[in-house]
Amino acid sequence: MSQKIAILGASGYTGAELVRLIATHPAMEIVALSADRKAGMTMAEVFPFLRHLDLPRLCRIDEIDFSNVDLCFCALPHATTQEVIAKLPQDLKIVDLSADFRLQDVAEYEKWYGQPHAAPDLQTEAVYGLTEFYRAEIAPARLVAGTGCNAATGQFALRPLIAAKVIDLDDIVIDLKAGVSGAGRSLKENLLHAELSGGTHTYSAGGRHRHLGEFDQEFSKVAGRPVQVQFTPHLLPMNRGILATVYVRGDAKVVHETLASAYADEPFLNVLPFGTLPSTRDIAGSNFCHLGVIGDRKPGLAVVVAVLDNLTKGSSGQAIQNANLMLGLDETTGLMLAPIFP
Amino acid sequence: MSQKIAILGASGYTGAELVRLIATHPAMEIVALSADRKAGMTMAEVFPFLRHLDLPRLCRIDEIDFSNVDLCFCALPHATTQEVIAKLPQDLKIVDLSADFRLQDVAEYEKWYGQPHAAPDLQTEAVYGLTEFYRAEIAPARLVAGTGCNAATGQFALRPLIAAKVIDLDDIVIDLKAGVSGAGRSLKENLLHAELSGGTHTYSAGGRHRHLGEFDQEFSKVAGRPVQVQFTPHLLPMNRGILATVYVRGDAKVVHETLASAYADEPFLNVLPFGTLPSTRDIAGSNFCHLGVIGDRKPGLAVVVAVLDNLTKGSSGQAIQNANLMLGLDETTGLMLAPIFP
Amino acid sequence: MSQKIAILGASGYTGAELVRLIATHPAMEIVALSADRKAGMTMAEVFPFLRHLDLPRLCRIDEIDFSNVDLCFCALPHATTQEVIAKLPQDLKIVDLSADFRLQDVAEYEKWYGQPHAAPDLQTEAVYGLTEFYRAEIAPARLVAGTGCNAATGQFALRPLIAAKVIDLDDIVIDLKAGVSGAGRSLKENLLHAELSGGTHTYSAGGRHRHLGEFDQEFSKVAGRPVQVQFTPHLLPMNRGILATVYVRGDAKVVHETLASAYADEPFLNVLPFGTLPSTRDIAGSNFCHLGVIGDRKPGLAVVVAVLDNLTKGSSGQAIQNANLMLGLDETTGLMLAPIFP
Amino acid sequence: MSQKIAILGASGYTGAELVRLIATHPAMEIVALSADRKAGMTMAEVFPFLRHLDLPRLCRIDEIDFSNVDLCFCALPHATTQEVIAKLPQDLKIVDLSADFRLQDVAEYEKWYGQPHAAPDLQTEAVYGLTEFYRAEIAPARLVAGTGCNAATGQFALRPLIAAKVIDLDDIVIDLKAGVSGAGRSLKENLLHAELSGGTHTYSAGGRHRHLGEFDQEFSKVAGRPVQVQFTPHLLPMNRGILATVYVRGDAKVVHETLASAYADEPFLNVLPFGTLPSTRDIAGSNFCHLGVIGDRKPGLAVVVAVLDNLTKGSSGQAIQNANLMLGLDETTGLMLAPIFP
Repeated sequence: MSQKIAILGASGYTGAELVRLIATHPAMEIVALSADRKAGMTMAEVFPFLRHLDLPRLCRIDEIDFSNVDLCFCALPHATTQEVIAKLPQDLKIVDLSADFRLQDVAEYEKWYGQPHAAPDLQTEAVYGLTEFYRAEIAPARLVAGTGCNAATGQFALRPLIAAKVIDLDDIVIDLKAGVSGAGRSLKENLLHAELSGGTHTYSAGGRHRHLGEFDQEFSKVAGRPVQVQFTPHLLPMNRGILATVYVRGDAKVVHETLASAYADEPFLNVLPFGTLPSTRDIAGSNFCHLGVIGDRKPGLAVVVAVLDNLTKGSSGQAIQNANLMLGLDETTGLMLAPIFP
Repeated sequence: MSQKIAILGASGYTGAELVRLIATHPAMEIVALSADRKAGMTMAEVFPFLRHLDLPRLCRIDEIDFSNVDLCFCALPHATTQEVIAKLPQDLKIVDLSADFRLQDVAEYEKWYGQPHAAPDLQTEAVYGLTEFYRAEIAPARLVAGTGCNAATGQFALRPLIAAKVIDLDDIVIDLKAGVSGAGRSLKENLLHAELSGGTHTYSAGGRHRHLGEFDQEFSKVAGRPVQVQFTPHLLPMNRGILATVYVRGDAKVVHETLASAYADEPFLNVLPFGTLPSTRDIAGSNFCHLGVIGDRKPGLAVVVAVLDNLTKGSSGQAIQNANLMLGLDETTGLMLAPIFP
Repeated sequence: MSQKIAILGASGYTGAELVRLIATHPAMEIVALSADRKAGMTMAEVFPFLRHLDLPRLCRIDEIDFSNVDLCFCALPHATTQEVIAKLPQDLKIVDLSADFRLQDVAEYEKWYGQPHAAPDLQTEAVYGLTEFYRAEIAPARLVAGTGCNAATGQFALRPLIAAKVIDLDDIVIDLKAGVSGAGRSLKENLLHAELSGGTHTYSAGGRHRHLGEFDQEFSKVAGRPVQVQFTPHLLPMNRGILATVYVRGDAKVVHETLASAYADEPFLNVLPFGTLPSTRDIAGSNFCHLGVIGDRKPGLAVVVAVLDNLTKGSSGQAIQNANLMLGLDETTGLMLAPIFP
Repeated sequence: MSQKIAILGASGYTGAELVRLIATHPAMEIVALSADRKAGMTMAEVFPFLRHLDLPRLCRIDEIDFSNVDLCFCALPHATTQEVIAKLPQDLKIVDLSADFRLQDVAEYEKWYGQPHAAPDLQTEAVYGLTEFYRAEIAPARLVAGTGCNAATGQFALRPLIAAKVIDLDDIVIDLKAGVSGAGRSLKENLLHAELSGGTHTYSAGGRHRHLGEFDQEFSKVAGRPVQVQFTPHLLPMNRGILATVYVRGDAKVVHETLASAYADEPFLNVLPFGTLPSTRDIAGSNFCHLGVIGDRKPGLAVVVAVLDNLTKGSSGQAIQNANLMLGLDETTGLMLAPIFP
């Protein structure tokens, strides 16, 4: 029997990606789609690639009858999100894709997002949605906070290494390369094809990227003591995909074995043979994350490379993975789509 | 119960696309994959994006036990194909993706492909695989010849118009824009990223493109008299997708109504409202074809634009659609994947 | 001795392209740059690729002392332009890159641009800036109106053929493929990298593109009677370059000879050997236009393909070519930069 | 008076880039172009973008009369190069763009290139061609060895810092992002547009990239003791450009001041204001290198980002810069072309 799904904020890329994935999900059915500024339009008008689907018309949030909804995905901008979710029915299952409930400490939220949190109680209630590490908490949760896409990539590369203490916790560099769909459907000059194609540049460098809040929170929790990584994101002329090159101090073979062992039974996390490094083009459009490890010519240095699709495993695919758990479905339901290549 | 599938020529793009689609097909199971020069390798070595699948190792064709195979896809180069298929068991169901069995007239084959056909009997037996127009013949067929991807795009735009005689049959221009995956995994300078990205050029212009053989055969059959279109293909810096801009003489509204009416019940052919023209980005990775019609400021001139994904609806998706019919399955089984955007 | 140059509207792509070209022009010196909304900024802040140049700071137009200016390039949006130019000194030499002075007939301007012209006297005075065909008028002119980039491409392919009457004037189709820089630095969803890259679509199809006004005016003038072409532009995932595929009825060899003969002495117009068709990647960043002609398998049909860089030969390069003439310089001064490849 | 120039290996990308730059160089004239496998062809046939130039036909090396040549650029593959140059006239000025004469230690050459050097005497004679640091040696040299493009980028970021000892010499990470033209016109599957566009991956990771030989040689020389950096190159879906993200331990402000001071008078090296980081799109097609420095939230960590165009400043532009010095010309002659954007 199909679970009834609502998607708030269906006119952005993560909203559209949820629709794409649910289109072939055998146990979910979309009953409501909201997009305040585009209320009244059909999804085919906003995203013609979804034209073949029979979908409800876009509406305002206050037009949705949530008594008829089993689970609600919230793909709204941060700040807006906390206000919207605070007003939704208190027993509605919610998977949030924004940044609003990722940080459990009120002060940290204010530090990274520049304003006090408007719903601190919900902030405490929310479960951090990195599925592979929080399954037990996610399954019974009412409100799950999807992770940042960069934050997910870095954590897949590092959590088992930090937990096992096989690397130096005080000298970790994450050099990250991100596709442009992670910036959303924002109208900015540097996201225009004419400006982005054929070139690359850093953004939010120098320890200013907000996903550092997630890294700090999670890595410190895993380590049992403060851990602060160095993090430099780059924007690349590609639409989907993140590649994180992670520089660690430790024995490369041990690093590889630690990851391979930690993820041996994970359906979506794939550790390549030692010395083989992954490519973003092998996970585009899918919920898979590929990881590789190589040593350096200087003993004691290792490089971990992790790749995933920011819109799928880094966002909407992860959200469905969490929703599957919350709805009592098999975690992989509807998510085994193969990547698309070329 | 799953149908057992073999794929010959699994190391090319159309072979890999077959595997991608069958990966989530509920009634097909891959039991053999051949690739002569890469025999012995795993599919993950040749196409790491398929790494998550449990697939048979690549082998030589003569190593396959066809008694265990329900249907065989043949994704080999033309000329080679006719020799291979001639040696396969005479009762094996085959969907061929090459050009070898598309032209029913031996002389036409020789004219367009520059050599005599080595298996003229099979050539006569083969059914032309444009599913929407040959369902009745395809379902009981043993050997189905998949169409050219350009040829499919042009035919979807034109067949109903020619059949209904609502356009001038002697003044048809197909200006076609094609993504580079249609050229296959060939190592040619002009297919390098450094040379192709950011530019466009024509190829096989001046009435020399081999898909003209298909256009001639099919349009003349539909019209009941010789029809020869003018056809100029262009290579674009994109990987998937074909957009055909078709110039016809006729009443634009009538042209639109004729197409809309012809395709009203087709699950994969989607005619947009009059005056709306489609984009390749709305069908990437899917089996859908979108069509649009617009009139010109000069009465009596109309433009039909058709888009599809050359690897899916233009090749491997079409092949599975035909295989579904040949195996008694619902024609859309496994093919309702949404396009991927962005 | 250097000519003193002002550029109005220096914060757009054509303004920046003017600066790029003048940077190595031996006889021009930039003395003023305007950009109303960015007045006060340096050019390096707006366009960091120009950081190495010693340029005047951006200012408002009313801050410029035009008594110190030999020639002014005006790269402002249409409609704004006519108001600005009407207020400039009456003896200032001006090369305008907007659409405002391309159409000599007031009614035609209103028809294509949707509003009455605010400076009809100047409209009559302006010389149409297609250099190769209006040299005698441009050299002494005070106000020259740069052509549309698509309009230039189509005219290079067709003017000599129409003049020589070697083609049917009533059956001409221009199927044009354009890079995205032609749309300027506009913030629109369909110009985002995430949406444009990897796909193609038509725009202003059906006889609605404004450059048809130029085609009508010029082709009718050349023919001595009304000529209306059919014109379908497509947007491609490339930044620079236009490729026009022009379908004409006439003897292909005669068509080729007519073009080759007409352009034999042109430094920027290069007719390829018969049967060879050009690529946009061979003219990027340069002021060259390459043209090719091929026949069809059906006698009496020919295809002319013309390529140029919309920002250079289609706009800012053409503007400098005209300015050279107006300033008594050799027409090619500063414009012999080789294309950039790859 | 023009200097007479020969280019050996004119059919590759660096050869073509030499021709592009020399096309507008006021004091160089090309008198011979070699390309063994394409001898007899015109340059326009091999590189149609150079069609407008009047160039000598491609020939075999042994057909060139070197008595008529003032300076010879050698753009041949490594290994071949050493054999060719050994046979050239002993007094011919040569700028080599291959890897053959970059490493001065015979053992190092053999270690990184896997075979003994065939011309060890020339290896000792050759001057390392990083212009800004070897001007005094380059001007009187007969044989100058152009640097690796990645090696140049890393050295511009690091040499002044190592010389001034303002960073920890034992903890330097260079994470480098490279455009695909650096791989040359090689026919490899992973360089095809269909495979490279839209994705990224590492190559020669783990301390195996040959440019490490140059880093080791030069950084150790500057430091006066062995220095070994960690180096991970990535291939990006862009044609031109390298961005090196360099992680160092030191005071970020001091790092910035050291670079700014070192390069204050350099015409091609441009240090941005503290905290501003550069983009590859701002140097494409030019001989400029932009550098930026930012601190981390953790004191004592700095990131230096350097960008340049691999074909120009990283290869052919550098070669001409060196040739200018060797011929007694101003070092910047012909090299002040502005970058191309968009």
